[in-house]
Amino acid sequence: MSRIEPREIDFLLHDVIGLDALLRRPRHQHLDRGTVDETVRTAARLAEEYFAPHYRAADSHEPEREGGTGRVVMLPEVKRAVDAFAEAGFLAAHHDEARGGLQLPWTVVQACFAIFQAANIATAAYPFLTIGAANLIDAFGTEEQKRRFMAPMLTGRFFGTMALSEPQAGSSLADIRTSAAPEPDGSYSITGTKQWISAGEHELSENIVHMVLARIKGAPAGVKGISLFIVPRFRVAEDGSLQGDNDVRLVSLLHKMGYRGTTSTILSFGEAGRCQGFLVGQENQGLACMFHMMNEARIGVGLGAAALGYAGFRYSLDYARTRPQGRPPEARDPASPMIPIAGHADVKRMLLQQKAASEGALALCLYCARLVDEQKTAPEPAARERAGLLLDILTPVAKSWPSEHCLEANKWAIQILGGYGYTRDYPVEQYYRDNRLNPIHEGTYGIQANDLAGRKVWQQNGASLTLLAETVRETIAEAARDADLAPHAAALARALETVAETTRVLGRERAEGRVAEMLANAVAYLEMMGHTVLAWIWLRQALVARAALADGRGDADYYRGKLAACRYFYAWELPKTETQAALLRSLDRTTLDTDPAWL
Amino acid sequence: MSRIEPREIDFLLHDVIGLDALLRRPRHQHLDRGTVDETVRTAARLAEEYFAPHYRAADSHEPEREGGTGRVVMLPEVKRAVDAFAEAGFLAAHHDEARGGLQLPWTVVQACFAIFQAANIATAAYPFLTIGAANLIDAFGTEEQKRRFMAPMLTGRFFGTMALSEPQAGSSLADIRTSAAPEPDGSYSITGTKQWISAGEHELSENIVHMVLARIKGAPAGVKGISLFIVPRFRVAEDGSLQGDNDVRLVSLLHKMGYRGTTSTILSFGEAGRCQGFLVGQENQGLACMFHMMNEARIGVGLGAAALGYAGFRYSLDYARTRPQGRPPEARDPASPMIPIAGHADVKRMLLQQKAASEGALALCLYCARLVDEQKTAPEPAARERAGLLLDILTPVAKSWPSEHCLEANKWAIQILGGYGYTRDYPVEQYYRDNRLNPIHEGTYGIQANDLAGRKVWQQNGASLTLLAETVRETIAEAARDADLAPHAAALARALETVAETTRVLGRERAEGRVAEMLANAVAYLEMMGHTVLAWIWLRQALVARAALADGRGDADYYRGKLAACRYFYAWELPKTETQAALLRSLDRTTLDTDPAWL
Repeated sequence: MSRIEPREIDFLLHDVIGLDALLRRPRHQHLDRGTVDETVRTAARLAEEYFAPHYRAADSHEPEREGGTGRVVMLPEVKRAVDAFAEAGFLAAHHDEARGGLQLPWTVVQACFAIFQAANIATAAYPFLTIGAANLIDAFGTEEQKRRFMAPMLTGRFFGTMALSEPQAGSSLADIRTSAAPEPDGSYSITGTKQWISAGEHELSENIVHMVLARIKGAPAGVKGISLFIVPRFRVAEDGSLQGDNDVRLVSLLHKMGYRGTTSTILSFGEAGRCQGFLVGQENQGLACMFHMMNEARIGVGLGAAALGYAGFRYSLDYARTRPQGRPPEARDPASPMIPIAGHADVKRMLLQQKAASEGALALCLYCARLVDEQKTAPEPAARERAGLLLDILTPVAKSWPSEHCLEANKWAIQILGGYGYTRDYPVEQYYRDNRLNPIHEGTYGIQANDLAGRKVWQQNGASLTLLAETVRETIAEAARDADLAPHAAALARALETVAETTRVLGRERAEGRVAEMLANAVAYLEMMGHTVLAWIWLRQALVARAALADGRGDADYYRGKLAACRYFYAWELPKTETQAALLRSLDRTTLDTDPAWL
Repeated sequence: MSRIEPREIDFLLHDVIGLDALLRRPRHQHLDRGTVDETVRTAARLAEEYFAPHYRAADSHEPEREGGTGRVVMLPEVKRAVDAFAEAGFLAAHHDEARGGLQLPWTVVQACFAIFQAANIATAAYPFLTIGAANLIDAFGTEEQKRRFMAPMLTGRFFGTMALSEPQAGSSLADIRTSAAPEPDGSYSITGTKQWISAGEHELSENIVHMVLARIKGAPAGVKGISLFIVPRFRVAEDGSLQGDNDVRLVSLLHKMGYRGTTSTILSFGEAGRCQGFLVGQENQGLACMFHMMNEARIGVGLGAAALGYAGFRYSLDYARTRPQGRPPEARDPASPMIPIAGHADVKRMLLQQKAASEGALALCLYCARLVDEQKTAPEPAARERAGLLLDILTPVAKSWPSEHCLEANKWAIQILGGYGYTRDYPVEQYYRDNRLNPIHEGTYGIQANDLAGRKVWQQNGASLTLLAETVRETIAEAARDADLAPHAAALARALETVAETTRVLGRERAEGRVAEMLANAVAYLEMMGHTVLAWIWLRQALVARAALADGRGDADYYRGKLAACRYFYAWELPKTETQAALLRSLDRTTLDTDPAWL
């Protein structure tokens, strides 16, 4: 099976991300490196024992609606897996001890979660959404809501969802129509239809807590009139017991190319006029609240994409090391023995792309998780604010770059296995199918590009980008002092300057009100930024590897691999930013000027 | 349904490829534009009536082995489709009238074939392989073999396969082990196992003619000891009647991610020691013979990839024109109406990528088909030779570029449909899964890169590349005279010079025997060449479009669409060749220097 090597998590957490500094903070003082490593090992064990074995089976036996009862049934292995996850405390791991949590840093929770995602991303989606929904109630709910709805989510009695999209409003949340009418008891009567609700129906938990966006009657049009509600599948009494149906109906299950183990649903709320919802946070502030969950979810999507990329990388690496085929280009004697395909230059290229994309993406997402911790526990308010600024600009990158480039990684994993990789006897085609969802959900690739190039780059007079550039320059300065890494440092400095120049050109468009022109090629901006950020992430890893090799630490091959992937990234990938920047600086109007009627 | 617009075929055949000149040649003098157009319309009608309707169903009900009989059964619609194809004469269309053919140009046959591939590529694979196998017998078989085996393939009584790969020898044909022992009657006894044999078993035809590569006992090792054999599933008597089993056994069916309607098989030959084969061509010349079929098949794979790309393009275009979602970036009023997503710049980018890739790939593959005709019917021997030289260098490009970039096109088709595109209720996910095979079969992407950068570019002192460059320069000269296209002409001239410079650098490596260094980054060379060739193909189309618009021909929007796609290609795609060339010219050693043990 493929799994995330504990060695890799260890390297990222302790050597690259600097987890140990976090552990010294009051919130985490009960932890040390040993307890963290033990937690990671537990995750690896559970992933291997409960998640990985049914990865294929849950794909070929998707959840279905039972004829008689209308219930959604699925392989029993899924419930055993999510139960094991809950029982080990992973649903509550980062929560306060007072609430039954372990007060683990979010970074550790995310590192563990990636291990589950690599083993079985579709099954991991159930706890993924539950954790997100619980975090949302934790952030904005009342104490009563936390007691009634969040507490059972931390133990796995209740699961959660996020219910945003509607059939007529996918990416355009401004256009949702689900309505909420105030009731005398302070609750709201919810009416509407939601679509693409992952984990929207199942029998894995006693109850499902839907976090629903809806409009309170009379609210302003657009995103300023959206509120957030808790809408349980079954009503919950004061004492926590279930009080029967809350008028939430499964309209239908959606059947996907991949991610088949996760139910995707259309749900109707309030068909019988008795669907009860509870306002979370302020009226009309629903989108802002939901973005709390969405930003986390976006990084989580990137992490999942990275995990799938990594799983394909390790699988195809094992295959390439053992599959003999062909001979070196110089070999003239056809009777000479074949070599393992890992010896062919182009197979090494495909391995290096996968390693660079997946390990780089994993590092980026865990770095973002570290920023979430920083926002929460940094002693200085200024440090918290800086973490928030970095997170703002890195979130669209952490969501999109892995989704795009780890999907590509999975493409190369299939390619390395050749015909075998194209069959359903090997997991790589499933990684590829599963990963194809990631550039779509939680805000498409295009939406992320607009978020970055249309909003995040400019906020607070560009404070996020300025801070990111300063942070990258620290790494450049460090690497410039290392003779072997100095050329990379110089290349990254140029890329950073290219980003700055390009941003200035787009800033002029923005200043003059040419918003469409500014955003015409936003995905090129996202790619340019993403590649620059990943180059920085790789240089950070290379610095650690160089130091480890210089110190003569064991496992030299591991560090040489890090340096090889870094070298690959700077030779094959980073130069692409030049082409993207040239397109952007030319303010190319091809997309704007093309009339769809011509196509 | 998605299909190739007759308008597009018309434009490519008559305006871009110059089919009409072909029709004036003696072999085709019974044809005119009207008969060709009628043939294309027939293909479109059959594709729509017989091929398209079961595209999805054949994916969800793949062929399976029947319990009792061991026969491979599949949806009856597949047989009805291939029968209709045969009855309309498409299996024999390009063959001599004396053999029951229509003496159609290969270009027309391929244009029609793309229509079938766009409708249902998995069902089209059965005639695809039959046509290829028949062509192989036509080129190298004896008159007796043509009568006994080829003639029934032209009517659809027999179908064909190509049986090259073995479990231990996929890309490395030098290592095949299937053996052929001469029998007193002049036939050979065949023993061995073949894998990945598409259409290797089915009940669609009375017999299956396998074109098998095997080693005659005592043959030299490697590719110089491979011979080609006709091995029928059932023996065929002198009078053409079937004489029972020929000891060819289905070992198992392989289950693929896509292309599920086409059986993929493992076959054993001669388990009982009585599998009869017939040598085709000379002993030990099998690989050269097979390359006749493979080169055709490679262009056919490119054509299929283009057809899938095109199908996804049209489907997502229709969707984008009718799905309302979001507002222009300038729109501030959330109550203003939503616009069709085709109006969003990034959706137009995704449409333009698909159009540029799929229509460009279609044009390239039909241009290659035109060269096949030229080889066959050009009056001047020198013209035939030139066509052969161009085909040599263009075949790896025509195989690979569409396979890679029309797969990417299908990725964007899914993206445009968003969540819907990821469900199995829409065909785009199936296009994507089906197309994923194309970079693998008939020589992987890496194999094509090595063929181009290791062989084709250098053959006859670079005669192929020189001739290609001359051909491209003619288009450049023409476009340079058009003020609107002159910038594209200049960009293409630079790209061509970049290819030349890069080739010189690699040539020095080759001259000094550094073969591994020359080939280390061969896929970057293939991509650079492919993008340059496609830029040329687009400039040719743009020239036609410009002339048509200047003449005031109808359908102006169609021509504007061609110019928009050309503009897209030059703005977004062609500049990538600079990055590839820089990598190649630096003789980057990352892939060579990386030890797989480090990864």
